[in-house]
Amino acid sequence: MMIVMKQAASEEEIAAVIARVEGAGARAHVIRGEEITVIGAVGDREHIGRLGLDSDPGVDHVVPILKPYKLASSQVRKGERSVLEIGGAKIGGEHFAMIAGPCTVESRDQTLSTARLVRESGAQFFRGGAYKPRTSPYSFQGLGVEGLALLAQAKQETGLPIVTELMDVRDLEAVVEVADVIQVGARNMQNYTLLTEIGRSGCPALIKRGFSSTLEELLMAAEYVMKEGNENVILCERGIRTFETAYRFTLDLMAVPILKEQTHLPVVVDPSHAAGRRDLVLPLSLAAAAIGADGIIVEIHPEPDEAICDGPQALRNDDFPAYFDQVLKAAALAGKTVSADV
Amino acid sequence: MMIVMKQAASEEEIAAVIARVEGAGARAHVIRGEEITVIGAVGDREHIGRLGLDSDPGVDHVVPILKPYKLASSQVRKGERSVLEIGGAKIGGEHFAMIAGPCTVESRDQTLSTARLVRESGAQFFRGGAYKPRTSPYSFQGLGVEGLALLAQAKQETGLPIVTELMDVRDLEAVVEVADVIQVGARNMQNYTLLTEIGRSGCPALIKRGFSSTLEELLMAAEYVMKEGNENVILCERGIRTFETAYRFTLDLMAVPILKEQTHLPVVVDPSHAAGRRDLVLPLSLAAAAIGADGIIVEIHPEPDEAICDGPQALRNDDFPAYFDQVLKAAALAGKTVSADV
Amino acid sequence: MMIVMKQAASEEEIAAVIARVEGAGARAHVIRGEEITVIGAVGDREHIGRLGLDSDPGVDHVVPILKPYKLASSQVRKGERSVLEIGGAKIGGEHFAMIAGPCTVESRDQTLSTARLVRESGAQFFRGGAYKPRTSPYSFQGLGVEGLALLAQAKQETGLPIVTELMDVRDLEAVVEVADVIQVGARNMQNYTLLTEIGRSGCPALIKRGFSSTLEELLMAAEYVMKEGNENVILCERGIRTFETAYRFTLDLMAVPILKEQTHLPVVVDPSHAAGRRDLVLPLSLAAAAIGADGIIVEIHPEPDEAICDGPQALRNDDFPAYFDQVLKAAALAGKTVSADV
Amino acid sequence: MMIVMKQAASEEEIAAVIARVEGAGARAHVIRGEEITVIGAVGDREHIGRLGLDSDPGVDHVVPILKPYKLASSQVRKGERSVLEIGGAKIGGEHFAMIAGPCTVESRDQTLSTARLVRESGAQFFRGGAYKPRTSPYSFQGLGVEGLALLAQAKQETGLPIVTELMDVRDLEAVVEVADVIQVGARNMQNYTLLTEIGRSGCPALIKRGFSSTLEELLMAAEYVMKEGNENVILCERGIRTFETAYRFTLDLMAVPILKEQTHLPVVVDPSHAAGRRDLVLPLSLAAAAIGADGIIVEIHPEPDEAICDGPQALRNDDFPAYFDQVLKAAALAGKTVSADV
Repeated sequence: MMIVMKQAASEEEIAAVIARVEGAGARAHVIRGEEITVIGAVGDREHIGRLGLDSDPGVDHVVPILKPYKLASSQVRKGERSVLEIGGAKIGGEHFAMIAGPCTVESRDQTLSTARLVRESGAQFFRGGAYKPRTSPYSFQGLGVEGLALLAQAKQETGLPIVTELMDVRDLEAVVEVADVIQVGARNMQNYTLLTEIGRSGCPALIKRGFSSTLEELLMAAEYVMKEGNENVILCERGIRTFETAYRFTLDLMAVPILKEQTHLPVVVDPSHAAGRRDLVLPLSLAAAAIGADGIIVEIHPEPDEAICDGPQALRNDDFPAYFDQVLKAAALAGKTVSADV
Repeated sequence: MMIVMKQAASEEEIAAVIARVEGAGARAHVIRGEEITVIGAVGDREHIGRLGLDSDPGVDHVVPILKPYKLASSQVRKGERSVLEIGGAKIGGEHFAMIAGPCTVESRDQTLSTARLVRESGAQFFRGGAYKPRTSPYSFQGLGVEGLALLAQAKQETGLPIVTELMDVRDLEAVVEVADVIQVGARNMQNYTLLTEIGRSGCPALIKRGFSSTLEELLMAAEYVMKEGNENVILCERGIRTFETAYRFTLDLMAVPILKEQTHLPVVVDPSHAAGRRDLVLPLSLAAAAIGADGIIVEIHPEPDEAICDGPQALRNDDFPAYFDQVLKAAALAGKTVSADV
Repeated sequence: MMIVMKQAASEEEIAAVIARVEGAGARAHVIRGEEITVIGAVGDREHIGRLGLDSDPGVDHVVPILKPYKLASSQVRKGERSVLEIGGAKIGGEHFAMIAGPCTVESRDQTLSTARLVRESGAQFFRGGAYKPRTSPYSFQGLGVEGLALLAQAKQETGLPIVTELMDVRDLEAVVEVADVIQVGARNMQNYTLLTEIGRSGCPALIKRGFSSTLEELLMAAEYVMKEGNENVILCERGIRTFETAYRFTLDLMAVPILKEQTHLPVVVDPSHAAGRRDLVLPLSLAAAAIGADGIIVEIHPEPDEAICDGPQALRNDDFPAYFDQVLKAAALAGKTVSADV
Repeated sequence: MMIVMKQAASEEEIAAVIARVEGAGARAHVIRGEEITVIGAVGDREHIGRLGLDSDPGVDHVVPILKPYKLASSQVRKGERSVLEIGGAKIGGEHFAMIAGPCTVESRDQTLSTARLVRESGAQFFRGGAYKPRTSPYSFQGLGVEGLALLAQAKQETGLPIVTELMDVRDLEAVVEVADVIQVGARNMQNYTLLTEIGRSGCPALIKRGFSSTLEELLMAAEYVMKEGNENVILCERGIRTFETAYRFTLDLMAVPILKEQTHLPVVVDPSHAAGRRDLVLPLSLAAAAIGADGIIVEIHPEPDEAICDGPQALRNDDFPAYFDQVLKAAALAGKTVSADV
């Protein structure tokens, strides 16, 4: 941690900061420039952080040097990328994964026909929501346990690993029974209770970036899960909030290469929610794959016009195979391919 | 809902949209301009919304007309403002309320001495955290039930109503036993499970605006609580995320007059978290009171330098009485005062 | 324009708005819903806009329906895309264009060696700055007329059309003598004087999106140029400002497909400035090309470590040919290629 | 400048950075933590900055320590605040100033009647636009020289100093003849040509913050003017762009206390443009004055419904005296008053 003193800081103020740093058991390195003095504090970061030096007399600001996440950081793996193996599917490193399915599980037919298509097209995971976070309390909130039962059927019939969202810790047990990957929605990215319990469950997690969360906060969310001993975490960029009103969210594709620099965890992109429009799903997916995403999580539906939820952004099932082909070509530009043995 | 057609929309496309609207049991009003046709759809908004007309051929975009919240809207009270009476304190309308206390309950001494000061200064509520949402899993997470016990003591001794945060639905029962107002943190503003359960508990709620949530989303969070029959909701602006890096969050004081136009619920401001600096608490509080906030929720501490959490932003207990005096003068400019009988 | 009345609006207020609309020579269509009345105003938008109906009694808000830009809109070309032909190079439609060169023209050697490389690699335009907008008045501001002379030499020797920035209207004459495309920097996107004069000059323009400008504002900037009879405008996305601090700007690749829906003008992407890092130029360029950009404008330098300006984001000249090859593969996924005859 | 090395940086990489720093004539201080090494570079910041160390092998990132502005910084005045005296009016320090007048100069009557009212109410400056920056090229662009003549009349008749906007450097001479303060609009905040020429003119400047500019960038704009020897600069907060769509801009009142910490220059607030609504002008002005602004620049009009431009946000002339009284009460809370001798 570097403590930058004000230009007008007195010698007494500088000495007082040094004393406080050393009192916390850390070493203080003083660098005197012509205009400003900077004090480097080396030692236990929790102890130093707790001093709250920002508001000490003469202190201009404090610059943290170390990243606050540990288990999620690239360094812990010395630059090697994590490859997760989940229900026979691989994701991460050179392994690209397609995660497809409906926004919401609505019926037996809709679920199973879509799951079969996903399987036949060669995709790696089946996604479907039984619990839906909705901005309005008056909107459809998902089929709940009935939806989980349909997902279990889809899994049994196709063998595809299942990705589904958990919103309420009290549903954890039921969800873990069918989920191969628990999805944490953007609005719950900082629901620390949920993250901790998922960590304890040992079930792999796919964490969506909050729509106004920094990459560091996303990594801290992963850290909450990993701290409990569960290292199977997938990160997901799904669009952030900006001033632009021409689209719902701004898909932040720069997050992909930067996250891959900061963490060993796989990074996927959701091209469905940012635009909320079917016709943008393909171009956004091509860009995501070309920039190096480890996978795509996309919404598809047999008849989007009849969908209970988010129909306008769902690809039609019939269009999915051709879409997937195109995406794989873009992934190949980034040196990625789906594992042959899946 | 107004459906704006593309300039190039064909007559067939216009007719198809009209048919879809009427098929949902709504009336379609067609307005033909020289360049563009607009179709007004009048009827049940849920039904019309579910059609997903945005992605119909020839449709440019859809403009929702009705606000999605109902119970929280100003109209439901015909412009009359809600005055909440909680544990002898009034908030809303002409009643200004000061909510003060430590970020975190740390010890018996710290809690009780601060509560006494808050009482003696004439403030309306005592705040204190037993469960703390922390970005890092490695940070102090609060005293938990032990903290709740200290709050209960403070309440017993001072008679002040207690404001404290709930993060995990499984703690609801324990929290409700001591809390007069349950605080929902910014990161949990869209934790719909939590909101619904607080609604069912009947305990008044103070909901902090998510740091990237629109005012409409904040009102939808209130709606989640109110839909369960619990109308005692206080809204809180605490800073939003912007591109500016000179402060942690940008306190959005415009939210106060706009919220008061949109909702009958009381609106308070938290001046402590946005800047994270003690010296900015007074100017931000003066501005908040002058712009018409119904109250302030502020962090104070007997010895901020020793605080476990957020010390640099806490006012010193000793400075609180003079601070409160100044804030009341600013509130008076907006026609507000604390109730005499409190 | 749709005027949405407040729920509590009286019949008198509704009648008054109708009278005001009709008084401006427009027709008023009244749509009465159960909760809210909406008045559609059809007629001259300037006249209606000038009424300032937003603040009339009983009016909740006003929704503009027509886009404010005309010449730049897709509709004016009935969906056909503009293909610009500039100095033998084509851009737009199926024609992908690579615009490469140094951030700043520094010396004869640097300029000519880079221009030759750009030519040999098959790129379409040579870029180089003689006037540099710098945040600090203490930074190097460009070689000025001397830089223009170097660009003229580069043009003469390679035959490549030149893209260079204009900041001061008083330099227009000198710049037009060498520029085939005048670049308008992000900070000048709403410098209306500059835009108008460039429009009058007849010289093609490349307008960079302001780092906090909406797409509509970018199109209005184009409209300023086009209104003067100059239809040769290229739009450029170069990164917007968001809350994320891990990069300088967030490259908004969604802007590409949305702009191509709204306008017939070519859209290019600048992958150099958002990240400010050489190693991100390739992945960002691949994503830009895959999402359908009509071209890339990229900074290259023979020895980036020695560059006066923005060296860390410049590709090395030696790496440019291989980079360009990769980008063309991504462009091919979006159905684009460079014109054979260039 | 602190150079933070990557955790995996080798000894060679560390040595290379040290050599580069020392090669630029600076001193290198090495701080070795358990996980990370940081190198402090002390010396000429321009030289060190030009090295572009961010992209050197082994470097994680670079933290600038010194502020890039000098003349605008608080330190240059050792904490003393600048009080500008312009045409008999004082602004800065304890001197609050009210700057009022129409958005646009429209006619002799409108201009003179408003100027007289401003004078009689005891305000310090008269504002009015002759050149208007408009998003649309089809909108009214101001009366130009004719408008300047009306401002000259207003000045002659009332003796009030005049604040008016300059957009085109070619109009500088004409504007300086009547202006006591040249206003630089938000869209021109980084029009460096304009800033430099205003600096050379010696005429005081009021610079509006760009709607997505950081405070540091605003101070750099001031620096462009001051570098030319013109120290009479007033800064103006007028609203920034955020994700919130309930208002046009988010008035960032936190900017006021932070700017006053960073610079000795006076800081004023424009309460008219952010909301664009007359009814919000008073509450926003009260908040601005209470938080410590050195003045307010507000739009007023004899008949806002007839205004050519921005009528909905203009206060009615008739309401101005009472408004000003209220604002002064709020300013008094921050220890400010208008100078008696004005």
